[in-house]
Amino acid sequence: MIEDEIKAEKYFKCTDKERASFELGIKLGALFHQFVGAPVSSKNINILEKAIEKTTERQIFVKKAEVRIIPKGLDKRKESVFHDYTTLTGEMLDAKVEVDYKGIKAVGRLKYIEELDYPLMFLESID
Amino acid sequence: MIEDEIKAEKYFKCTDKERASFELGIKLGALFHQFVGAPVSSKNINILEKAIEKTTERQIFVKKAEVRIIPKGLDKRKESVFHDYTTLTGEMLDAKVEVDYKGIKAVGRLKYIEELDYPLMFLESID
Amino acid sequence: MIEDEIKAEKYFKCTDKERASFELGIKLGALFHQFVGAPVSSKNINILEKAIEKTTERQIFVKKAEVRIIPKGLDKRKESVFHDYTTLTGEMLDAKVEVDYKGIKAVGRLKYIEELDYPLMFLESID
Amino acid sequence: MIEDEIKAEKYFKCTDKERASFELGIKLGALFHQFVGAPVSSKNINILEKAIEKTTERQIFVKKAEVRIIPKGLDKRKESVFHDYTTLTGEMLDAKVEVDYKGIKAVGRLKYIEELDYPLMFLESID
Repeated sequence: MIEDEIKAEKYFKCTDKERASFELGIKLGALFHQFVGAPVSSKNINILEKAIEKTTERQIFVKKAEVRIIPKGLDKRKESVFHDYTTLTGEMLDAKVEVDYKGIKAVGRLKYIEELDYPLMFLESID
Repeated sequence: MIEDEIKAEKYFKCTDKERASFELGIKLGALFHQFVGAPVSSKNINILEKAIEKTTERQIFVKKAEVRIIPKGLDKRKESVFHDYTTLTGEMLDAKVEVDYKGIKAVGRLKYIEELDYPLMFLESID
Repeated sequence: MIEDEIKAEKYFKCTDKERASFELGIKLGALFHQFVGAPVSSKNINILEKAIEKTTERQIFVKKAEVRIIPKGLDKRKESVFHDYTTLTGEMLDAKVEVDYKGIKAVGRLKYIEELDYPLMFLESID
Repeated sequence: MIEDEIKAEKYFKCTDKERASFELGIKLGALFHQFVGAPVSSKNINILEKAIEKTTERQIFVKKAEVRIIPKGLDKRKESVFHDYTTLTGEMLDAKVEVDYKGIKAVGRLKYIEELDYPLMFLESID
């Protein structure tokens, strides 16, 4: 932990676990709202997954990010020039992000949940 | 609290305060990455502030959002057609978001901090 | 037309009508990719429409922007805390943008076209 | 050219060269507003450049996209945990996009222009 990080700590009025949870939430909210809307096609899924992973992993306290894009509808529409690509939606994303704040490991997930019909962001584990 | 929210709870493996912190992080990460890059000028600051507030307040568990845009450089450049507007950066934003999760009130902030030379997202209070 | 605009002209190798068309395309591409993904609910539609209009109108050469959000599915899902809002998609947007470049008036549109099952950006008129 | 593209043509009231210019503008506006705000560090520049190229190339009529990110300030700040990354701004982008519409080739550019102190989008050539 370096100088600026120590300076930053005084702004936080919470426990270390609450901070770890907060930092994890930031990363998932950022990931969703930065990339939703990006053009996606069967031909660029891999590179877009990797870019989302790498931009997430460069953020503070992030240890690992794994991203899968499940492009519902891309194949069934591929005959059309307009449907050769679509735009990324939250429903297509399955992202797992792990943060480590002072040894506290928190894992969060963004995933479409069928029973909710909604891409849910949730805190999978913290210890 | 309604049906879907109860269904969603089982995905979270954390305390209520950690969840409140996580939800707050999501909202600040979303706010930043959704709106940074938007065209901003002295003539649309108010409407953009209001739109960020209202889109944030519509998200789950958010009780209140207050947003100020401090457009560094807008005035000193206004003589130029190109500088009549700029694009919104994190440095210009001062946002305060309050969530209420099961009676736990958590307040978060996005604000440019001079000693860090950085727009910091922090957890101002939780009780 | 002011100083910077005259300086900028030399970078363009095209006719005035092509430039007007190009500028119009920029504005529609910007509008779509800046705001898609924003949280939208029946309670913030008006303010979001207005913010998109005002941020678009502040850009160079834009004379007028009119934006309607048609939130497919918002009402039928409103019983759920998760479906109380959704995220803005291209399909929900009907935007009309008018640019004036040296007296050339070009009007562009972003609109969901049923026969294409696609939100099309098109050049409605130029004279 | 396929079926949907032929259906779409009737919505355009302009010449083929104006349409090529319009399509080019869309792609540059999209590229800017989709990716500005993304976290960027010296360690993920290459993958982000590639993702922007590939998402742009998948869009209709685009033949080629070349993107360079020139991360002003990343190196001089790298000692700080907060400055280990920054967020992508228009000033850092140098993007060249080529569209081909019915054999008309149009090349556009997004580039920071020193004399304007502005990231300008311009139409470099059309024939």
